[in-house]
Amino acid sequence: MDTREMLASFRIPIPLGIDEVATVIDACLNCAQSCTSCADADLLEDDVDEMRRCAALDASCADLCETTARILSRPGQWDEFVVHRLLQACARVCDACAEECARHAAHHRHCAICEKACRACERACNELLEGEAFTELQKLAGG
Amino acid sequence: MDTREMLASFRIPIPLGIDEVATVIDACLNCAQSCTSCADADLLEDDVDEMRRCAALDASCADLCETTARILSRPGQWDEFVVHRLLQACARVCDACAEECARHAAHHRHCAICEKACRACERACNELLEGEAFTELQKLAGG
Amino acid sequence: MDTREMLASFRIPIPLGIDEVATVIDACLNCAQSCTSCADADLLEDDVDEMRRCAALDASCADLCETTARILSRPGQWDEFVVHRLLQACARVCDACAEECARHAAHHRHCAICEKACRACERACNELLEGEAFTELQKLAGG
Amino acid sequence: MDTREMLASFRIPIPLGIDEVATVIDACLNCAQSCTSCADADLLEDDVDEMRRCAALDASCADLCETTARILSRPGQWDEFVVHRLLQACARVCDACAEECARHAAHHRHCAICEKACRACERACNELLEGEAFTELQKLAGG
Repeated sequence: MDTREMLASFRIPIPLGIDEVATVIDACLNCAQSCTSCADADLLEDDVDEMRRCAALDASCADLCETTARILSRPGQWDEFVVHRLLQACARVCDACAEECARHAAHHRHCAICEKACRACERACNELLEGEAFTELQKLAGG
Repeated sequence: MDTREMLASFRIPIPLGIDEVATVIDACLNCAQSCTSCADADLLEDDVDEMRRCAALDASCADLCETTARILSRPGQWDEFVVHRLLQACARVCDACAEECARHAAHHRHCAICEKACRACERACNELLEGEAFTELQKLAGG
Repeated sequence: MDTREMLASFRIPIPLGIDEVATVIDACLNCAQSCTSCADADLLEDDVDEMRRCAALDASCADLCETTARILSRPGQWDEFVVHRLLQACARVCDACAEECARHAAHHRHCAICEKACRACERACNELLEGEAFTELQKLAGG
Repeated sequence: MDTREMLASFRIPIPLGIDEVATVIDACLNCAQSCTSCADADLLEDDVDEMRRCAALDASCADLCETTARILSRPGQWDEFVVHRLLQACARVCDACAEECARHAAHHRHCAICEKACRACERACNELLEGEAFTELQKLAGG
């Protein structure tokens, strides 16, 4: 991924830091890919009845991760509030998706990989959220 | 749009109400279309130098509106927190985009139409956010 | 939807016609919404085992419809080849999705609505494809 | 990116090959990220007047790359025709975007990086298109 280099090429400073933001973008794109494939793989399984919640969460997780990656890729008209709320939503759906995938990880390899991708993305979002930049918004949002 | 009918066809009750949610989805899709066209039209104008903030905000507004429409279109594994944060982010970027479009509405018709679409979407998101369902989350989020 | 008005606000003529293109954009956005909800509703059904192909096709149909709506919403740097190939892909996935939904339309109302939305979108794409503008590309593509 | 591993976890064979498809998906996601940032960076430049075509093409290139990545990530209900047409559209917009970025690569670093990402994605799509699997469709499409 050229994410880091792309952010470094902006003529303005990147709010929250180049490395920090690039890490979240890459984690989001990897998670979106994993979730898209995981949902499709779920629908081929013999125990599809058990996989319905997984497939549904995967779909929303992929959408939120892609949009988060896009918004973070545009520092030009950065809006701290938008980024903050989106990161919160993204971290939450990644957590829900990881938890569900974990239930199937032992018998479906795609869930094991997807769980890992969701956890990595959740962690990356949370690290950005816990940065000083968001301290005040964080307080307002009750954590 | 068949949005209302689609939501009514679910075998579960729609959190926040069928009409209320359908209104937001339709407003989001209309706003996403307006913003996508407005950004493209901005880049054809003689005063493109004045339109740069408009084009950039349009892009992020379109992305957030589409994702909000998608998440609201999936009541199956509804997550109140995700919906709440996403509606907040969506309302905020709609407001910023409407404000910028308003500055150009007198001389660019696409901005006048887009301003209206953004305001309608912002209003729809805020009406959902102000519903009783979100009262507690709302308090936590400091309004 | 303000689609027609947005296209009419461009300072360049709209290739393939304002009404014709607006019709496809609106049909695409309606179809994307229906497919997104239909996939989610499929995953709640008792006969989810029978709905797996429907849910998978819905996901790809929603993605292609949204992207087709976006590309058509940007006449500024119009590329006839890109539009043509995308319309072909969109019409095809709408047809496949409509066919699958038709199999469940009698017992799942969401599939009945979604089938209609897919057919309307397929028809709109094909009408654009059959226009004179595409005659040469059409010949090259073998129909 | 876990793309290769995700595709390898499917219980069905991957049409066109795991490595070949994973390469295109990864190239698409990298290109989508580059284009999204490049468009935003364009709008901050002093010579924005010269960058309008670049920003417009970037937007469509990002959309098509993301959708191509999604469709390829779902081998479950694979449709050769849809994949073929989408790859053609994606390769074409990547070529147009790379050509435009090349004009600005000497003075805007983001364009230099984005040009490379577009060319890599175009090449990956074309390699898949030239595979034996598509020989017949390729003939029908006149190359």
